[in-house]
Amino acid sequence: MADRLRVGIVGSGRIGAVHARTLAYRVPEAEVVAIADPNQEAARRLAGELGVRRTSADYREITADSHVEAVLVCSSTDTHASVVTEAAKAGKHVFCEKPLDLDLARVDAVLAATERARVKLQVGFNRRFDPDFASIRRRIAGGEIGAPELLRITSRDPRPPPVEYVRVSGGMFLDMTIHDFDMARFLLGEVEEVYVSAANRVDPRIGAAGDVDTAVVVLRFASGALGTIDNSRRAVYGYDQRVEVFGSKGVLFNANRTPDTVVAADSTGVRGPLPLDFFMQRYADAYEAEIRAFVRCVRGDETPPATGADGRRALVLACAAKKSLAEHRPVEVSEIG
Amino acid sequence: MADRLRVGIVGSGRIGAVHARTLAYRVPEAEVVAIADPNQEAARRLAGELGVRRTSADYREITADSHVEAVLVCSSTDTHASVVTEAAKAGKHVFCEKPLDLDLARVDAVLAATERARVKLQVGFNRRFDPDFASIRRRIAGGEIGAPELLRITSRDPRPPPVEYVRVSGGMFLDMTIHDFDMARFLLGEVEEVYVSAANRVDPRIGAAGDVDTAVVVLRFASGALGTIDNSRRAVYGYDQRVEVFGSKGVLFNANRTPDTVVAADSTGVRGPLPLDFFMQRYADAYEAEIRAFVRCVRGDETPPATGADGRRALVLACAAKKSLAEHRPVEVSEIG
Amino acid sequence: MADRLRVGIVGSGRIGAVHARTLAYRVPEAEVVAIADPNQEAARRLAGELGVRRTSADYREITADSHVEAVLVCSSTDTHASVVTEAAKAGKHVFCEKPLDLDLARVDAVLAATERARVKLQVGFNRRFDPDFASIRRRIAGGEIGAPELLRITSRDPRPPPVEYVRVSGGMFLDMTIHDFDMARFLLGEVEEVYVSAANRVDPRIGAAGDVDTAVVVLRFASGALGTIDNSRRAVYGYDQRVEVFGSKGVLFNANRTPDTVVAADSTGVRGPLPLDFFMQRYADAYEAEIRAFVRCVRGDETPPATGADGRRALVLACAAKKSLAEHRPVEVSEIG
Amino acid sequence: MADRLRVGIVGSGRIGAVHARTLAYRVPEAEVVAIADPNQEAARRLAGELGVRRTSADYREITADSHVEAVLVCSSTDTHASVVTEAAKAGKHVFCEKPLDLDLARVDAVLAATERARVKLQVGFNRRFDPDFASIRRRIAGGEIGAPELLRITSRDPRPPPVEYVRVSGGMFLDMTIHDFDMARFLLGEVEEVYVSAANRVDPRIGAAGDVDTAVVVLRFASGALGTIDNSRRAVYGYDQRVEVFGSKGVLFNANRTPDTVVAADSTGVRGPLPLDFFMQRYADAYEAEIRAFVRCVRGDETPPATGADGRRALVLACAAKKSLAEHRPVEVSEIG
Repeated sequence: MADRLRVGIVGSGRIGAVHARTLAYRVPEAEVVAIADPNQEAARRLAGELGVRRTSADYREITADSHVEAVLVCSSTDTHASVVTEAAKAGKHVFCEKPLDLDLARVDAVLAATERARVKLQVGFNRRFDPDFASIRRRIAGGEIGAPELLRITSRDPRPPPVEYVRVSGGMFLDMTIHDFDMARFLLGEVEEVYVSAANRVDPRIGAAGDVDTAVVVLRFASGALGTIDNSRRAVYGYDQRVEVFGSKGVLFNANRTPDTVVAADSTGVRGPLPLDFFMQRYADAYEAEIRAFVRCVRGDETPPATGADGRRALVLACAAKKSLAEHRPVEVSEIG
Repeated sequence: MADRLRVGIVGSGRIGAVHARTLAYRVPEAEVVAIADPNQEAARRLAGELGVRRTSADYREITADSHVEAVLVCSSTDTHASVVTEAAKAGKHVFCEKPLDLDLARVDAVLAATERARVKLQVGFNRRFDPDFASIRRRIAGGEIGAPELLRITSRDPRPPPVEYVRVSGGMFLDMTIHDFDMARFLLGEVEEVYVSAANRVDPRIGAAGDVDTAVVVLRFASGALGTIDNSRRAVYGYDQRVEVFGSKGVLFNANRTPDTVVAADSTGVRGPLPLDFFMQRYADAYEAEIRAFVRCVRGDETPPATGADGRRALVLACAAKKSLAEHRPVEVSEIG
Repeated sequence: MADRLRVGIVGSGRIGAVHARTLAYRVPEAEVVAIADPNQEAARRLAGELGVRRTSADYREITADSHVEAVLVCSSTDTHASVVTEAAKAGKHVFCEKPLDLDLARVDAVLAATERARVKLQVGFNRRFDPDFASIRRRIAGGEIGAPELLRITSRDPRPPPVEYVRVSGGMFLDMTIHDFDMARFLLGEVEEVYVSAANRVDPRIGAAGDVDTAVVVLRFASGALGTIDNSRRAVYGYDQRVEVFGSKGVLFNANRTPDTVVAADSTGVRGPLPLDFFMQRYADAYEAEIRAFVRCVRGDETPPATGADGRRALVLACAAKKSLAEHRPVEVSEIG
Repeated sequence: MADRLRVGIVGSGRIGAVHARTLAYRVPEAEVVAIADPNQEAARRLAGELGVRRTSADYREITADSHVEAVLVCSSTDTHASVVTEAAKAGKHVFCEKPLDLDLARVDAVLAATERARVKLQVGFNRRFDPDFASIRRRIAGGEIGAPELLRITSRDPRPPPVEYVRVSGGMFLDMTIHDFDMARFLLGEVEEVYVSAANRVDPRIGAAGDVDTAVVVLRFASGALGTIDNSRRAVYGYDQRVEVFGSKGVLFNANRTPDTVVAADSTGVRGPLPLDFFMQRYADAYEAEIRAFVRCVRGDETPPATGADGRRALVLACAAKKSLAEHRPVEVSEIG
C-alpha cells in the first residue's frame, strides 16, 4: 500500500463533501484522488476547493481506476448496492453511507461480493463514533452498571424531510430509526423481538405517502434486557439525541450538546441553550472520527468498527419494525432473516 | 357540617399514621376522632401521640359511629372494598388508598355503593398532588407544548417489596404501575390500547411468585398520542420518578428531587446528590396535599381531584397490561371493561 | 422543667408568627403560652389561631411571667437588647432574631447579662440550619476538600427593602451581609481582615439615605484562606443564595432551590424554574429547624448552635466592613473589637 | 496582497505548533512559509509535518524575508518585544502571544513601532474567541441583562507551572491573571481601581520564588460596576473557567466544558464528567478562531479583535494588582499609566 491511502469519492453532495474535506484537511494518511457525481458542477467545485485532480460524471471511472485504493460511497441510496459491488469487484475497500440497500436480498448480494473480494466494508453508522455513546458502551462493557436491564433511546429530528424524500426513503424505520437500531445493538447486543406503535402526527402528507412520523419501538434483547426507542420527525427545540442505560448496579445517560453553555436568568425564568440543530452539527466530530477509523482499518488491515454485517442487522430490525406496524403485533427478528 | 371535619382513620400503619399526623398537625379544618386497627397497640400509640380519644380493633365501630363524618381507609388492600362500602352506606365520605380492590367487579360494586349513598370518594393517587406533575399537567392544559405526541414515564423503585407482599399484591402492574397508569391519564387523558414487554430480572423469587419486576408499557391514547412507562423494582441509585411530555410546540420534563443540592468535584469526578430514597420522602408534600384536598372537597361539596372512577380506570389499564403480558399482544382497553 | 417548654413570644409580626406556628404545630415538646405585641390586634389574631391564652401589649408582662420558661424575641431591632436583658434577668432562656443590637457596646452588655443569668441565648442565624449549608460545613469538617483556600458567598436579595427601613437598619452590612458574615465564620472559622468595595446602583434613594446596595466583600481568614461575598439588593430572577468552597482536594457548592423542577424547551430555548422568591420561602425549613434546635438545647441543657458570641462576631465583621468602606482600605478585625 | 497570506512563525513550541497546524490545515486563505526556532530540530520536525520549505535558527531570517507578509510570535516572552519590533519595522503584520513584554515602557516602544509601521498587531487573548465568552459579551451589549453591576471571573488552573517558569514569568498576575484582566475589559470595559488579596497556599516553592498562587482581585469599573476574579494555581478537578455577569435586568453565566456529557448514578451518588483538563483542550477552538480572525483582519485591512493597546491595558491592570498586593491597599489604575 502506498504511503497515503488514495481515495475516490462517489457523490459530492452534503455528506460526500463533509467526508472529502475531512480526508483533505484532517487525515494526512489519505488523499482524495477523484470525485464522481452526475452533477458535474458540484463535483468540480468540490474538487477545486480541495485540489483534487480528477472528476467524472460516472462513478465507474472511479471504481475502474487502478490508482484508487478505497471508495467512499456517498451517492443516493438506490445506487449504493451497485457502487459498492463494483468497487469491491475491482478490489477497492469501501466506506458506504447507510443503508447499503432497502432490500435485504440485495444487501446479502452486496455482502457476498465484498466477502469474495476480501475487501473491507464499513457502513456509515456515525453515531458509534460520538464520544458520549462510545463512552457509554465502554462503561457498560467495563461492568460499571452491572447487567443492563433497560435501554432508552430518544431520537427526534428537528424537522421532517421533504415529502418527496419520504417517498423514496423506505419510510421512517429504514431511514431514521435504522440509526437507533444500530445504536441499540452497539450498546446492548442482539435484538430478538420488535414491537412498534406509531402514528402520523407531524405532517399529513407524510401519512399520505404511507409513512409515519412519530413512533415508539420496544426491543427485547437476547440478553433479556428490554429497550425503547422514541422517535419524532419534529422536535421544535432541536435535534434530540439521548441514550439512557439502566442496569443492576446503576444507570448511565448523556445530554444533548449545545453550541455554548451560557445560561441567562431574568424575571421571567432561567434560560439555557438549545441543542445543536441537526446531525451535521451534532455529529461533526463523529463524521470525522468514522472516516479516520476507516482509513486506519484499511491501512492496518483491521475489521471496521461498523461492518456490512452490522448494516444488515440494523436493516433486519427496521424490516421487523415495519412488519410489526403492519401486522399490529410483536415480531420475532428471526421471522425476517 | 360541624366546624371541623370529624375523621375516623381505619388502619394505623405507615400511611395511616402519615395521614393522621397531617390531619392532627397541619389541617386545622379537620380533627381525627377515632382510629381503628386490629393491631390495637399501634392504634393506641398513634392515638396517644395525637390526642385522639377513641380507638378500636374493629373498623365497624368507626363506620357505625354517627359522630364520624369522613373515613380514611388505610388498611390492607383486601379490606378496602368492605370498609369503603360500609362507610358509604353509613353516609360517610371516604378517602381510600389505592387500589379500591384488585377485582374489577368488586370495584364496580363499591362505586355503585358510594354513588347510591351520594358520598364523596377520593382515591389515593398521591402523585397528582406533586408540584412537578401538577405543573406539567397545568402547562399542557395551557397549551404550552401544543398537542402532546409522546409521553414518557420513568418509574423505578429503589428496591423490591418482600416476596410475601408480592404474592398478595396482585402483581407489579396492579401494585406499582397503577400509579403510572393514573399519571398517564392525569396528563394525557384516556388510553385505548396497552402493550407490555416485561421480565423477571431483579429477584428470581419474584418470578417464582408469578410476577415480573422490570417492564416497558406502551400506551396509545384516545388523542392519538403515544406513551411509554418504564418500570423497575430496583434502581440502586434511588427512587426514580420522572415524566417527559413531548408535543408539537415543545417538551416538558421534571427531575428527581434530592435531599440537598450540594455538588462536589475532586480529581475523580463531579458528584451530586442521589434522589430522595422512596415514596415516603419523595411524596411527603403530596401526601399532605391530597389530604388537604379531601377535607376541602368534603367541606366545600366539590368533586375530589382523584375519584373512584379514576381508581377504576387505572385498574382497567393494569388489567389490560396483565392480559397483554399473558397473551403477548397489544390489548384494547375496551376488551377489559 | 415541665414536660413541655413554655414559651412566650415577643413580637407577632411576620417572623414572630412563623416561629409561633412552628412551636404550635410542629414542636410537641413546647407550647406557646403568651404573645406580646404593642399591636394588640396582631397579637390577638395570632393567639386566636394558635389557641394561646394570654396576649399583652407590653413585653414585660412576658418577661415577668414566672410561668414562662423561654422567650422568643421577634420585635423590632431597637428593642432586642432591652427584651433580651430583661428576659435573662428573669431567668428565661432566649432566642433572639439577629442582630442583638447595632451597637457593639450594647451587645456586650446583653452578653454579660445573659452570662450572669446563666441562661441560654440563641441568635437567629437561620441559614446555619439550611440542609445545603449544613452539609457543606459537615463535609469540609470531614476533610472532603482538604484545606479550604477560597470561599465564595453569593447573596442577593430579589428586591430592596423600603427606604424607611434602610434608614433604621444600620445599613446593608448590618442588616443583610451580617448573615453572610456568619455563614463565612460557620464554614471557615474566624476572619482577620475585611475589605469592601461597594456602590449605590439599585435605587438612588438608598444612596440618599447614606447606604449602598451593591457590594463585594473580601475576607482573609485566620486559617489563611481568602473569601468573597457578593451582595445585591436586587436580583430580578429571585433570591440568590449560593456558597462555593474551594480547597486543596476539591470544591463544594450548592444551587438555588426552586418551587418545582420542571424544565420546558421550545423553539426559543430551554427554560427552567426561578429560585424561590425570598427568605420566607427559601429558608422555611431552616426557620423550623432553628426553633426545634433552640427547644432541644434548652431542654437538654446544651450550647445553642448559634450563640450570642456568634452574633457579636458577625456584628464586628459588619462594623469592619463599614469602616473599610468609609476609609477605603482593608481593615483588621482587631481594630473593631 | 497575494492570494494566500504568507506567514512566518517564530517559535515552534507547543503554542507555535498549534497555530502552525491551524494555518496549514484549516485556513485555506493562508500558508506557512517559514518557521524559526533556536531549537532547530523542533522547527524542522514541524516544518516536515506541514510541508513548510524553510526553517531557521534565527528569527531575523523571517522578519527580514520579503516573501513573508505576516509573523506569528510564539517564542519565549523575553523575546516578544524584539521580534515584534523588527517584524513591524520590516512592514510585516504581527500576531503576538501575550504578554508583549513584562515591562510597560518596552510595551509602549513596541506599540509605537507598530504604529509607525502601520502594520496590524494582534495580541493572543484567545479567550475572547471562546463561544461562551463571546456570547456573553454580545448579549450584554445587546442589553439582555440591563446595566452590568457585578462581574465574577473564576479562573483556576489545574496545576501550577514549574517553579523555574514562575521565576521568569513576572508572577501570577502577569502570567495568569492577565487573561482575566483582559476578559474583564472585554466584557465590562475599562477598570479604574484594583485591589488584591493573595496568598501562597499551593506550593511553598512558589512563595519562595516571591510569588502567590491563590488570589482574589476586586475591580471597580469606570461604569461603576464591581467585579471579582478568583484565581488558584491548583484546581484538582480541572481547569475552571467560568464567568458570571449580574445586571439590573438579569444574569448571564457559563459552565465548564467537559469531554463528554455522560452522567452515571449508582448507590454511592450521581457522577458527571470533569472539566477539560487545561487550556490546550478548553480553548482549542478559540485558538483556531483567533488565528482565522488575524488572517481575516490582515487580508481585509480591519482592526484586530485584540489589539496591542488591549495588551497594554491588561498589563497595566496586572501591574496595579502587583502594586496593590505589595502596598496592601486599593490602587488607582491611573497610578500605573
